[in-house]
Amino acid sequence: MHTFLQQLAGLIGPAHILTEPADTAPYTLDWRRRYQGAPLAVALPGSTAEVAELVKLCRAHQVAIVPQGGNTSTCGAATPDGSGRQLIVALRRLRQIRQIDTDNDTLTLDAGATLQEAQQAAEAAGRLFPLSLASQGSCQIGGNLSTNAGGVAVLRYGTMRELTLGLEVVLPDGRILSQLSGLRKDTTGLDLKQLFIGAEGQLGLITAATLKLFPQPAAHATAMVGVDGIETAIAWLNALRARFGDRLTAFEVIDRNCQQVLLRHHPKLMPFSAPWLVLIELSDGGDAALLNDSLVEWLSRRDMSDGVVAQNETERRKLWRLREEISESQRLDGPSIKHDIAVPTSALPALVNDCAAALEADFPGIRIVAFGHAGDGNLHYNVSYTRPGNVDLFDDEAAVNAIVYDHVYRLGGTLAAEHGVGQLKKDWLARYKDPVALALMRQLKQALDPDGLMNPGKWL
Amino acid sequence: MHTFLQQLAGLIGPAHILTEPADTAPYTLDWRRRYQGAPLAVALPGSTAEVAELVKLCRAHQVAIVPQGGNTSTCGAATPDGSGRQLIVALRRLRQIRQIDTDNDTLTLDAGATLQEAQQAAEAAGRLFPLSLASQGSCQIGGNLSTNAGGVAVLRYGTMRELTLGLEVVLPDGRILSQLSGLRKDTTGLDLKQLFIGAEGQLGLITAATLKLFPQPAAHATAMVGVDGIETAIAWLNALRARFGDRLTAFEVIDRNCQQVLLRHHPKLMPFSAPWLVLIELSDGGDAALLNDSLVEWLSRRDMSDGVVAQNETERRKLWRLREEISESQRLDGPSIKHDIAVPTSALPALVNDCAAALEADFPGIRIVAFGHAGDGNLHYNVSYTRPGNVDLFDDEAAVNAIVYDHVYRLGGTLAAEHGVGQLKKDWLARYKDPVALALMRQLKQALDPDGLMNPGKWL
Repeated sequence: MHTFLQQLAGLIGPAHILTEPADTAPYTLDWRRRYQGAPLAVALPGSTAEVAELVKLCRAHQVAIVPQGGNTSTCGAATPDGSGRQLIVALRRLRQIRQIDTDNDTLTLDAGATLQEAQQAAEAAGRLFPLSLASQGSCQIGGNLSTNAGGVAVLRYGTMRELTLGLEVVLPDGRILSQLSGLRKDTTGLDLKQLFIGAEGQLGLITAATLKLFPQPAAHATAMVGVDGIETAIAWLNALRARFGDRLTAFEVIDRNCQQVLLRHHPKLMPFSAPWLVLIELSDGGDAALLNDSLVEWLSRRDMSDGVVAQNETERRKLWRLREEISESQRLDGPSIKHDIAVPTSALPALVNDCAAALEADFPGIRIVAFGHAGDGNLHYNVSYTRPGNVDLFDDEAAVNAIVYDHVYRLGGTLAAEHGVGQLKKDWLARYKDPVALALMRQLKQALDPDGLMNPGKWL
Repeated sequence: MHTFLQQLAGLIGPAHILTEPADTAPYTLDWRRRYQGAPLAVALPGSTAEVAELVKLCRAHQVAIVPQGGNTSTCGAATPDGSGRQLIVALRRLRQIRQIDTDNDTLTLDAGATLQEAQQAAEAAGRLFPLSLASQGSCQIGGNLSTNAGGVAVLRYGTMRELTLGLEVVLPDGRILSQLSGLRKDTTGLDLKQLFIGAEGQLGLITAATLKLFPQPAAHATAMVGVDGIETAIAWLNALRARFGDRLTAFEVIDRNCQQVLLRHHPKLMPFSAPWLVLIELSDGGDAALLNDSLVEWLSRRDMSDGVVAQNETERRKLWRLREEISESQRLDGPSIKHDIAVPTSALPALVNDCAAALEADFPGIRIVAFGHAGDGNLHYNVSYTRPGNVDLFDDEAAVNAIVYDHVYRLGGTLAAEHGVGQLKKDWLARYKDPVALALMRQLKQALDPDGLMNPGKWL
């Protein structure tokens, strides 16, 4: 290993290899503090060419690589094992904005740029890069790509996969695949970038991307309304899409228990309570007053328990803050067993109703806090006990997960919608995912990375 | 081979195996009449299970399979070679609409359904399936997927890849990969469907798909305007997107030579001539008069040589017919060397200007007819001579292609935007495509189809 590190220092410079525990600490514990790795070292290469040489060197020495972005994975996807033999490769030195093309509406940048840097670069050019996440100040484009990140704007703009036109990837043998052309149509062969999006660094190391930009909306119309059930919310979603098309840019739901959590920690933010709250936002390139009027007119013809339409940007920000404060309020409220699940939108009512009944039957007094991106069929579904301190909650984690995932898969859903699999859910993946699909994924892994050196110990 | 055909007859029934030349003729000549194949037989399986058994039998006998949809490939992608040893597998007996879910906005159907049948099923459910092609009465969903088809609605709704949520595929070893869940978010592993979309049947045989549906637009506003150059057209495209967002559903351009072709064959359809004609369409779920007014208002603030806004559906159909008649008018006008190219939208002016100059320099008197989907950077770029009969035109095909593709690739473009590669462009692909990308595609082919039995003789 000493020879390896010496050669690595020759490639990327000794200052860019971290081995002291004080230096590597920010890279070895995952975001949710469930996984503590012990790496051989942390390497901070400074260019795509250096990444390629580094990968070749690792292959020659059979050193495993754990690619890492902003280290904000919620499932331990970027944390090494405890063997002291895996090399973390962090791309924070690769953060250049390479090109902005406002006629083609594309942004080409290094994978180590943060999501916020990408948003700011777009904004400076008068454009919008729409991906938006709570961790955007820290998470990096390479990580967003590797988990196929989602967020609150997927309904209108799609996930990271749909926002990506091209990638530059260092393959497991050190070759550089460079496809950063920014074309919206290309049928010359397989769309290779798709292999690396959502692969959690197990098939290659993404070093740059060409992303889609959009016009900045000139106007927003934002409302928070109370409805009597998730069935009504889904009916509204479809009616809004029919009326407003892609001007409907957000459709978020918050259940009663989640409202109570918010009420405990942010009483002044809560406008009112209802069985379900729905946050609706329209965005447009035209006149703001017209857009607001059309939303008010649409809402006036609906039954709702209560409702508020933002009259200005301050009120709009306040409604969004309510949505954004959910995670932190939940954290303050105590531990919970978290799920990031999705089903076809049409199956959301069955999921919400049947799964709660099944959990309550096996675990009386259980509490479900559900909220999320109903427009994508995606709920964050968190389970805890109502009893003080949630004692022994995690003893029941496996049994709770099995009930939740059984319901999700019976309804054609998925156990990971936007947070990935990583280490946290890899056993569940093996249990629920179609065996033909899993076998095919392993064939692809074998073809690209026969030595198994790219992010081992995760789900592939 | 006799044993093979007997066993095949046992699997799918003797009535569903065609061997007589009169019966196989509709399957052996490609759409543009450039490739005449001589197959072992044409097999017409009746279910996914039969397809899977058929594939296993072919593997056991090492018989190559040529999957075929509606046989409308423009590049010979679905035509067998002349050896008499390849089996055409046509899916026209698999045309069931399996499920329409209007809450989830998804359509699940067999791959042998025609595009028109998919459109009609969506319409009957009050929804829109937006893919739209000249061949929609014949082409099949499986073929649309295998070529990642485009068309006039890509600007708003994306290509077939973006319209697809799930696939069912028979793999080269006969296993069935079934992922028809209709989820909009799923991060459980690799997105395997992406491998088969645009693969021209070389990695597996698509038997069913789950596709996205959309609200039917309640209103359209459609205009044909004349502008002074392609630069102006691109500036308009960006301004329209900023103002109208995804309500801009079409932005098609027609150059001066293409207008003259139309004038010769459809003089009554032509409203006026200009250096470039632009066909603009907005679509919305709201009021038609408002939408029309906003387009008229937007156009009134622009410089244009001439313009007409459709006042009713009849006038709208007339403007669209002009666009739709281009291909047939060109055919009547005589042969041409056809290109289906795309570049970043920002590079369209350079492509149009520089490539014409280079062609004229080498081939004085050459005529370029250009039209297409400027909103996607995609032009249909057809080259012929002005001299009578276009004598010897195809003697110059290779030299013309090299000039065109040199320009396209210098500008970061592609030699196949929406028509695929097939047999027609496979040598050009080898010449222009990044060798790392080509090698990686072949690694994937080797991993999935080591015997090379899926659609051999094409580009993989």
